[in-house]
Amino acid sequence: MSEQPASIAELLQRIDQLESRNAMRDLASDYCHGFDKHDYARFEAIWWEDCEFEIGPPFGAFTGLAGIKRAVQEVLWPAWRETHHLTTNLRVWFDDKDHARGECDVDCMGASPDHQVMIVGASYYDRFERRNKVWKIRKRTVKLHYFNPLPGAQMSPPG
Amino acid sequence: MSEQPASIAELLQRIDQLESRNAMRDLASDYCHGFDKHDYARFEAIWWEDCEFEIGPPFGAFTGLAGIKRAVQEVLWPAWRETHHLTTNLRVWFDDKDHARGECDVDCMGASPDHQVMIVGASYYDRFERRNKVWKIRKRTVKLHYFNPLPGAQMSPPG
Amino acid sequence: MSEQPASIAELLQRIDQLESRNAMRDLASDYCHGFDKHDYARFEAIWWEDCEFEIGPPFGAFTGLAGIKRAVQEVLWPAWRETHHLTTNLRVWFDDKDHARGECDVDCMGASPDHQVMIVGASYYDRFERRNKVWKIRKRTVKLHYFNPLPGAQMSPPG
Repeated sequence: MSEQPASIAELLQRIDQLESRNAMRDLASDYCHGFDKHDYARFEAIWWEDCEFEIGPPFGAFTGLAGIKRAVQEVLWPAWRETHHLTTNLRVWFDDKDHARGECDVDCMGASPDHQVMIVGASYYDRFERRNKVWKIRKRTVKLHYFNPLPGAQMSPPG
Repeated sequence: MSEQPASIAELLQRIDQLESRNAMRDLASDYCHGFDKHDYARFEAIWWEDCEFEIGPPFGAFTGLAGIKRAVQEVLWPAWRETHHLTTNLRVWFDDKDHARGECDVDCMGASPDHQVMIVGASYYDRFERRNKVWKIRKRTVKLHYFNPLPGAQMSPPG
Repeated sequence: MSEQPASIAELLQRIDQLESRNAMRDLASDYCHGFDKHDYARFEAIWWEDCEFEIGPPFGAFTGLAGIKRAVQEVLWPAWRETHHLTTNLRVWFDDKDHARGECDVDCMGASPDHQVMIVGASYYDRFERRNKVWKIRKRTVKLHYFNPLPGAQMSPPG
């Protein structure tokens, strides 16, 4: 009987890691849902209060929830009429059970305020951290691969 | 020893939820594979017999497997020469262990019967339900963000 | 008490399958990260030494790690200035606990060496195999749906 508790402890640890991966995947998804659907509460909820958001040129770097708010509401949302982010290829590496690094790619199609359709490709490099049982983003670094107009294209709903 | 059975019950419930999330992810994927590859049996298998498929204007709403068949075979497939759906950003919320809501985004590139390349962006809002151990879609609501021709583009395999 | 060990064995098997699915998802992601970011070690690490990589016309079929190296370094990378693969819709079917088949879709945007932006859509059909506790790709077959220039488009980072 002596092995049983050990087995359960091991199972718990493995289940915890599976759940943690899903939690990080959810954070990557909520970044897109919150940003694209202009749901600021949802976007803000993915970040720790001492977070860092390094978007790089020409957008800059932002820290803390006040920085997130400024980045989104004063810099990024005003730069777009609409956006559609698709995140894929998420990889996660655990440093310990409460800290992990992530890497994923994003494809974004959007339209500028003057109705120019844009294509954007980037990768996100993340630091995830779990505090009091909750995973959030401690730091996201954006590497933009391309950011260009798509001549002649339009975006509009049918009807 | 009294805690052990409780632990196993809890582990089972957590594993069940992880497997259920995967099952829902598979449904979202099979929607794309079945539709794009014109595998109707695969597409139909993701829906409950009393399902609802609300695509919205200009396509309408469809109910039951007869409605799914009409939507796909009489409305959607005839509107396309080919389609390529990419589903990402899937979020799942459990109402109870057999009912869940989902939200995901889709990017679709396709060509019309007269060979016009089209770009489509949408979100899917789902009601998943498990019956007799099987998860399927009870209701899918589509919100189309854009649906436009891509001037000058063509789609053809190499060679 | 007699059921407990059986339960733990069953839980272990179910957790193993969840972890295996994640491992296969990671392989599909690392294909993209390794290829797009020109990290050859990362790309090579997803393949078994007796692998097969059937890309189809006009690229051909390649076997073994020497074939992978030739395909990537002599055929595919020289055909592109840059690429951005997004893998989604991954489905996995287990043949037994160490063998599985996969199907996923990919959307790739890239630029040719002479700076023509290209759009590519394809599906990957995979044979995954676990050896000594490690999952890798035994065979990947590519089905190209389209492979076309996107007239007028450019890809460049901001600034």
